[in-house]
Amino acid sequence: MIIVMVRGAAEEHVNQVIKEVQDLGYSPHLLRGTERNVIACIGDERGKYRIQALESLPDVERVVPILRPYKLADIETRPERTEIDIGGVKLGGMELQVIAGPCSVESEEQILETAEAVKASGAKFLRGGAFKPRTSPYEFRGLAEEGLELLALAREKTGLKIVTELMDPHHLDLVAEKTDIIQIGARNCQNFPLLDSVGDLDMPVLLKRGWSTTLREFLMAAEYILSRGNPNVILCERGIRTFESEYRNVLDLNSVPALRSMSHLPVIVDPSHGTGRQDLVIPMARAAVAAGADGLMIEVHPHPDRALSDGPQSLRPERFDILMREIARIAGAVDRTLTLGG
Amino acid sequence: MIIVMVRGAAEEHVNQVIKEVQDLGYSPHLLRGTERNVIACIGDERGKYRIQALESLPDVERVVPILRPYKLADIETRPERTEIDIGGVKLGGMELQVIAGPCSVESEEQILETAEAVKASGAKFLRGGAFKPRTSPYEFRGLAEEGLELLALAREKTGLKIVTELMDPHHLDLVAEKTDIIQIGARNCQNFPLLDSVGDLDMPVLLKRGWSTTLREFLMAAEYILSRGNPNVILCERGIRTFESEYRNVLDLNSVPALRSMSHLPVIVDPSHGTGRQDLVIPMARAAVAAGADGLMIEVHPHPDRALSDGPQSLRPERFDILMREIARIAGAVDRTLTLGG
Amino acid sequence: MIIVMVRGAAEEHVNQVIKEVQDLGYSPHLLRGTERNVIACIGDERGKYRIQALESLPDVERVVPILRPYKLADIETRPERTEIDIGGVKLGGMELQVIAGPCSVESEEQILETAEAVKASGAKFLRGGAFKPRTSPYEFRGLAEEGLELLALAREKTGLKIVTELMDPHHLDLVAEKTDIIQIGARNCQNFPLLDSVGDLDMPVLLKRGWSTTLREFLMAAEYILSRGNPNVILCERGIRTFESEYRNVLDLNSVPALRSMSHLPVIVDPSHGTGRQDLVIPMARAAVAAGADGLMIEVHPHPDRALSDGPQSLRPERFDILMREIARIAGAVDRTLTLGG
Amino acid sequence: MIIVMVRGAAEEHVNQVIKEVQDLGYSPHLLRGTERNVIACIGDERGKYRIQALESLPDVERVVPILRPYKLADIETRPERTEIDIGGVKLGGMELQVIAGPCSVESEEQILETAEAVKASGAKFLRGGAFKPRTSPYEFRGLAEEGLELLALAREKTGLKIVTELMDPHHLDLVAEKTDIIQIGARNCQNFPLLDSVGDLDMPVLLKRGWSTTLREFLMAAEYILSRGNPNVILCERGIRTFESEYRNVLDLNSVPALRSMSHLPVIVDPSHGTGRQDLVIPMARAAVAAGADGLMIEVHPHPDRALSDGPQSLRPERFDILMREIARIAGAVDRTLTLGG
Repeated sequence: MIIVMVRGAAEEHVNQVIKEVQDLGYSPHLLRGTERNVIACIGDERGKYRIQALESLPDVERVVPILRPYKLADIETRPERTEIDIGGVKLGGMELQVIAGPCSVESEEQILETAEAVKASGAKFLRGGAFKPRTSPYEFRGLAEEGLELLALAREKTGLKIVTELMDPHHLDLVAEKTDIIQIGARNCQNFPLLDSVGDLDMPVLLKRGWSTTLREFLMAAEYILSRGNPNVILCERGIRTFESEYRNVLDLNSVPALRSMSHLPVIVDPSHGTGRQDLVIPMARAAVAAGADGLMIEVHPHPDRALSDGPQSLRPERFDILMREIARIAGAVDRTLTLGG
Repeated sequence: MIIVMVRGAAEEHVNQVIKEVQDLGYSPHLLRGTERNVIACIGDERGKYRIQALESLPDVERVVPILRPYKLADIETRPERTEIDIGGVKLGGMELQVIAGPCSVESEEQILETAEAVKASGAKFLRGGAFKPRTSPYEFRGLAEEGLELLALAREKTGLKIVTELMDPHHLDLVAEKTDIIQIGARNCQNFPLLDSVGDLDMPVLLKRGWSTTLREFLMAAEYILSRGNPNVILCERGIRTFESEYRNVLDLNSVPALRSMSHLPVIVDPSHGTGRQDLVIPMARAAVAAGADGLMIEVHPHPDRALSDGPQSLRPERFDILMREIARIAGAVDRTLTLGG
Repeated sequence: MIIVMVRGAAEEHVNQVIKEVQDLGYSPHLLRGTERNVIACIGDERGKYRIQALESLPDVERVVPILRPYKLADIETRPERTEIDIGGVKLGGMELQVIAGPCSVESEEQILETAEAVKASGAKFLRGGAFKPRTSPYEFRGLAEEGLELLALAREKTGLKIVTELMDPHHLDLVAEKTDIIQIGARNCQNFPLLDSVGDLDMPVLLKRGWSTTLREFLMAAEYILSRGNPNVILCERGIRTFESEYRNVLDLNSVPALRSMSHLPVIVDPSHGTGRQDLVIPMARAAVAAGADGLMIEVHPHPDRALSDGPQSLRPERFDILMREIARIAGAVDRTLTLGG
Repeated sequence: MIIVMVRGAAEEHVNQVIKEVQDLGYSPHLLRGTERNVIACIGDERGKYRIQALESLPDVERVVPILRPYKLADIETRPERTEIDIGGVKLGGMELQVIAGPCSVESEEQILETAEAVKASGAKFLRGGAFKPRTSPYEFRGLAEEGLELLALAREKTGLKIVTELMDPHHLDLVAEKTDIIQIGARNCQNFPLLDSVGDLDMPVLLKRGWSTTLREFLMAAEYILSRGNPNVILCERGIRTFESEYRNVLDLNSVPALRSMSHLPVIVDPSHGTGRQDLVIPMARAAVAAGADGLMIEVHPHPDRALSDGPQSLRPERFDILMREIARIAGAVDRTLTLGG
């Protein structure tokens, strides 16, 4: 940690800072500059409660932490990349994995038709929401337990692995039982009690980046899960909120190589939410794979114009099949593999 | 709702849209322009699940909703301003209310010392976190139930009303019992199960705007609570996330008159989080009152440099007393009142 | 400057950094931490071309500058606040100054009617655009030289000081001759040749913050003007671009006390552009004064619904008169003065 | 254009709007809804000065334009994609084009060494700044005319086409003479006099998106150039400004397919500025090509740690060669071609 003093800081205030950091267990080194003094403090900053509070001391301009605040997610701590085994299917290795399906589970017919279609194109994972976070309380909020039953039925009929979202800690056991990967949605990226609750499980957690979560905060959210003992965290970039209104979000693909340089955890990309427009999904899916993503999450619906949620960003099954063929070509060009259907 | 067709849209696609919106219960009116056709649809859009999905129909460029998506929070629905009675103290009327106290409850001595001080300066509400959302799992997360007990003790000793945050639905009864106003924090502004849970109570809820929540989304979050039957919602502006790094957030005071033009709910402002810098708190508190806020929420700590959270934005009690005197003058200049202590 | 090395940095790379910074004229101090080494470099960073380039050296994680990059604008360099004399009227002192008038000069009748009205309410400065930056080339781009003549006429008839925008360096002499304050618009905040050109004058320059310019960049833009020898720079906050769409911009009033803590230059606020909505202008004008602004810039038009630009944010003269009376009350509450008309 | 009236709008105000829009040459159609009335106005909105001003009329809630504000840039106006011929090299067709070189021209040795290297790897265009926009007036601002001479020399020696930035309209002739493509930088994306000036030329213009310019504004900036008679505009995505601080900008690749759906103009991508980190340039260059970009602009410097500007984002020539080989593979996977060197 580096503490920068204001220009002309009083000597007694410099000494006060030195004393305080010593009390906190650091070794301070005072460096006198031409204009300002800085106090370099040697010691582990993480887990210390009162670092930023030092900015309240007189004549302190700012406190600059040096160490990364996350430990278990840090690639410096664990240099080999994490590969997660989901019932025999590996995510995070050479083979790309694709999760596909509707935003919401709406009916048996809808979910089974979608499941068969995405499986035929090569997806190994089926997504579908049973509990849906919706901006308005008057919108469709999902079929709840009935939705979970329908996902279980689709799993039984197709062998696809299931990914569904957990919103309410009260549903933890119910969701954990019916699914292969628990999804934490973008709005809950910093819902800490929810992160704690899935940290106590030992099943895979797909953690979506919040729409204005920095990468550092995102990795700290993952750290919540990891620090409770669950190492199976999949990071998912899904777009951030900006001033641009031509699309629902800006898919931040910089985050893919950046997260991979910061952490050993696998990184997948959701271009459906990341664009909000079905016409942009395929090119951005290609781009995600080219940027180094370990997988994709894609919204597919047999009849997007009748979807109860996220219709404008859902692909029809025949367009999803084209997506799979196109990303298989990109995968080859970056020395990754993708298993196509049929 | 207005549906804009692409230029040169096929006649059959226009007819398909007309048929679909009729099936949804609207009366469509086709308007043929020089370049584009638009279909104006008369009927209530709210509560309809499939409006945006219509953008998936062929040759539809976009769907423009006309009605506001919120109803109970809407000032058009209820033109008189809501005043909330908290144990005899009114919030939302002529008199400004100030909520003050530390970010976290840390000890009996700290909370009682702060409570006495803010009361002496005129505050009628004490804030203090017992359950704290923290970016890192390694930071201080609050004293939990012990913190609630200490707040109850401070209430008993000073008569101040208590405001504390609820993060986890499991703590609902515990928090509801010990507090006068339940706070929903910025990160939980769109935590819908949590909003539902406090919607089932009949006590006041202080709802903080998320750091990238639009005003429309913010009012929809309030609508979650209102639509469950709890009319006692206090909106709190606390700053939004932008590119600027000189301060922790940008306090968006535009939202104060804008929210008051959209909704009848009271609006308060938190300049402590809205700036993150104690040296900006007093001027921005003055600005908030000048912009029309119904109250303020201010972080006060007897020793900011030893605070376990949010030290850099906390005022010492003597600075808080100056704040109260300064905002009392502004209150007078906008025909509001503020009761000072002593 | 502090150079942070990656964990496990090779000794030869540490030595390479030390050698490079010595060559650049700094005194390096190597501090060995538990996990990382940092190299604290003593010396003046400003005016050095190659500081950030050091991040390209092997095993360097990041370079943290310590000194502020601006000098002449810095309050540490010149602690007394700058007061600018514009033909006998002082801006930056105890008395607030208000600049008012239409977005564009449209006709003799319009500009004279507006000038008389704003003068009657107490404004001492008339704004009006002769050269207008417009998003579309098909929109009204101003009356050009004829507009400047009409402003000169209004000055002659009313005695108001004139503020108008310079967009094109080719018009420098023309604009400088006809006006009392040259305005550099938000889009040109980092138009460096334009800044250089007004830096060579000795007349006041009103510099608007760009809509995504950080405060540090804003002060560096002022530094361009100051460093050419023109000390008469007025900073103007006019709103920043965010995700919120209820208003045209978010007026960032945090910047008022923050800029005043960073620089000695006067700071005024434009709530017309900062909100884009005439119904928000008065409350935000009050808030700006409460936050500590040295003045305001307000769009006033006798017939906003017929304005050729910025109609929705323009006040009618009778509303402007109310604004003046309301801010005079706020001025009193913050120990500033404002001269009202008649 | 659709005009939405407030709920309960007075009949006389509805009539006033109808009259005003008729005066402006539109055919109004009043549609009475259950809660609100809307007035659909048939006629061409573009080039009308007073559309938004109608929001100032009493009881008008908002005005929703229907037509796109740009004409010549619009793909609906000109459905075939524009291919630009730069001295025999085509940009915008099947073959990808790569522009590479240093941020600034620093010396004869530096520019010739770089030019030879990027040519050997397959680039056909050399970039290099002679006039540099710099945040600080104390930083290196380019070699000016000497820089242009060195670029001309590099062109002569290597046959590469030259791309350099124009900042100051006074340098128009000078820059136009020495270069093959004139670049308008991100800070000047809405510098309208500068756009007008290059609109009067008939040589190619590379227009960079401003860091908070919407796509609509970006196309309107292109429209400035097109409407003066110069059809040779190349759009360049180079990243936008957000809250994220791990990288200099967020490269918005959504814009690539989105711009291609809106306009016929070619779209290239600059991942060097779009990330600001040399370690992210190669993956994001791959992603850009996968998203459908027509070309790339890459910063290459023989000694990034000694670069006078943008060192941290510059590739060494050997890394640039790897980039070229990797994007050639991606090009193949999206049915585009790229000519490699050697």
